[in-house]
Amino acid sequence: MTPDVDRALAASIRLLVLDVDGVLTDAHLVLGPSGEEYKEFSARDGIGIKLAARAGIAVAFLSARESEIVRRRAEALGVREVWQGERRKLDALGRLAEKLGVGLPQIAYVGDDVVDIPPITRVGMGVAVGDACDDLKLRAAFVTAAPGGGGAVREIVETILRARGDWDEVLAGFLEGLE
Amino acid sequence: MTPDVDRALAASIRLLVLDVDGVLTDAHLVLGPSGEEYKEFSARDGIGIKLAARAGIAVAFLSARESEIVRRRAEALGVREVWQGERRKLDALGRLAEKLGVGLPQIAYVGDDVVDIPPITRVGMGVAVGDACDDLKLRAAFVTAAPGGGGAVREIVETILRARGDWDEVLAGFLEGLE
Amino acid sequence: MTPDVDRALAASIRLLVLDVDGVLTDAHLVLGPSGEEYKEFSARDGIGIKLAARAGIAVAFLSARESEIVRRRAEALGVREVWQGERRKLDALGRLAEKLGVGLPQIAYVGDDVVDIPPITRVGMGVAVGDACDDLKLRAAFVTAAPGGGGAVREIVETILRARGDWDEVLAGFLEGLE
Amino acid sequence: MTPDVDRALAASIRLLVLDVDGVLTDAHLVLGPSGEEYKEFSARDGIGIKLAARAGIAVAFLSARESEIVRRRAEALGVREVWQGERRKLDALGRLAEKLGVGLPQIAYVGDDVVDIPPITRVGMGVAVGDACDDLKLRAAFVTAAPGGGGAVREIVETILRARGDWDEVLAGFLEGLE
Repeated sequence: MTPDVDRALAASIRLLVLDVDGVLTDAHLVLGPSGEEYKEFSARDGIGIKLAARAGIAVAFLSARESEIVRRRAEALGVREVWQGERRKLDALGRLAEKLGVGLPQIAYVGDDVVDIPPITRVGMGVAVGDACDDLKLRAAFVTAAPGGGGAVREIVETILRARGDWDEVLAGFLEGLE
Repeated sequence: MTPDVDRALAASIRLLVLDVDGVLTDAHLVLGPSGEEYKEFSARDGIGIKLAARAGIAVAFLSARESEIVRRRAEALGVREVWQGERRKLDALGRLAEKLGVGLPQIAYVGDDVVDIPPITRVGMGVAVGDACDDLKLRAAFVTAAPGGGGAVREIVETILRARGDWDEVLAGFLEGLE
Repeated sequence: MTPDVDRALAASIRLLVLDVDGVLTDAHLVLGPSGEEYKEFSARDGIGIKLAARAGIAVAFLSARESEIVRRRAEALGVREVWQGERRKLDALGRLAEKLGVGLPQIAYVGDDVVDIPPITRVGMGVAVGDACDDLKLRAAFVTAAPGGGGAVREIVETILRARGDWDEVLAGFLEGLE
Repeated sequence: MTPDVDRALAASIRLLVLDVDGVLTDAHLVLGPSGEEYKEFSARDGIGIKLAARAGIAVAFLSARESEIVRRRAEALGVREVWQGERRKLDALGRLAEKLGVGLPQIAYVGDDVVDIPPITRVGMGVAVGDACDDLKLRAAFVTAAPGGGGAVREIVETILRARGDWDEVLAGFLEGLE
């Protein structure tokens, strides 16, 4: 369930950038009577994002589309970098990296479709969700077992933290905060 | 579909405590245009909860989050103990047990994620849903075949009542009430 | 996909009675922010219901719960007998049969859970959907391959019409009406 | 995942006509409290439709039902030919073909149920989605691996473009537009 990634690579990641549709959600767009949108997130991804933050990995959302829902979800999870309406993802990724003072090799980027090919092939750890299109999977350093919206983000966080040897400690600290 | 549990343990359970997101629902959070929430419950879990009540097992919902939907669902099922917004679950569980006059060994607690580790490891019967995270499954006394939101609660009720030898009688009484 | 049923039995069916939650929908209850309900039907079941009507089989919905949505869905499909809020299903079934002048042996009833045990064991053709609870499946004359909300109703209609040898003709007539 | 289709046939396709319910969505109808409708589209189908357009293949939606949601989805994807409320699909298909100046042999039509039998058997490339009913699959020139609403449209676009030998070039051009 959590395939191996290189420990040195995992240790170098300082920023986790997540595409939204197809990564934080499954690859569906749910539209209501007036064309308004609904989104289905994974509760377990939410805990994964909190654990990443505890481990000192910054998390950002990066989407070509725009939705108030995504802003709300980010707020609930304490994610401050929410970049929406960014059709030119690689360009946005460069600006984001500069803003946060990290290099592309220190970024893990998770995507699901061909629009994610440019960023995924430039970052340190390019990740495709388990149900990503083949063109993306072929170019990914890592393909999650879980599909988008079904725990893929949680899996990549857990994989990175386990490769570092940090998982048990981060989890213990998280649970202490709940006692 | 209904693995064995120890008959004496099953017979000792007086309170069934259910986490909400990932247990009564699957592990998804559905958000609408303004960030408002939707939840998907299992109709068969509903009947399971009614059957548990008929068998003299109290049922409680215990969630770290808060939602009017959960209050409504509880009302429809006759569940009076609805504890929401309880981030410190073990603490809440202790207060709930005291209020109802049951000991932790007499409680079955069903969870799906790491936040459920503290309660699941302290109660008499710690249950993980079929799609729970591995960290929880490893610590559970019982893992359901069904996933959260897909009949896991029904399964645990049926498993407990069958282990007691009560299922057929409770079911017959329930059906009589419908004739 | 369409297991055999006895031709004589199939030929005798004059009324198809469908439970709603878990049969016309999957076994989920979707609730919105104020506890209002949403339901997910199968488009293919809809065509199945129209084909049943063309073949001279009356169709009725029979539910222990109540929902405006069900009334709307029935209207869209031309189903006139919509019996909701009927907790005592066997009793309601008797009144429905009398109203339509059919006997219980001429009825196919489709259910998914224990509340459907009384009707399913009294009609001519008791049907359980593919994901029904075991207690119901054990008592059913026929278990569909498809789950509730996933084409179970379409499958039972097709199975009955094929057993009669009527499927091709009914389908041809239906398609002619679309040319 | 992308079975072979004849290169000459693929090269001849100038118009891709898509049924809506069961093809652009899965075979479910989601209804809200007042009977209002919700639809679930595939984000990956959306990119497939854009790629088809880039490759010079016109795309049209053709549905027996009517929904504002479909109009909105078409608008978002730049699909101009949206034919709804067309119960007599073959007739509508003829008028659409005439309007766009293409012959039936130059059309790929994708359907999921018996109502799609008339168009699917008359066009150059009749396609059934992976979870279409058997009566349609038997008459289809091509059956996608993906189900309706789960990437079937994306798959057929990719299959046609790969058969032509155009996929890599079209994709490269699409990605350039995002850099």
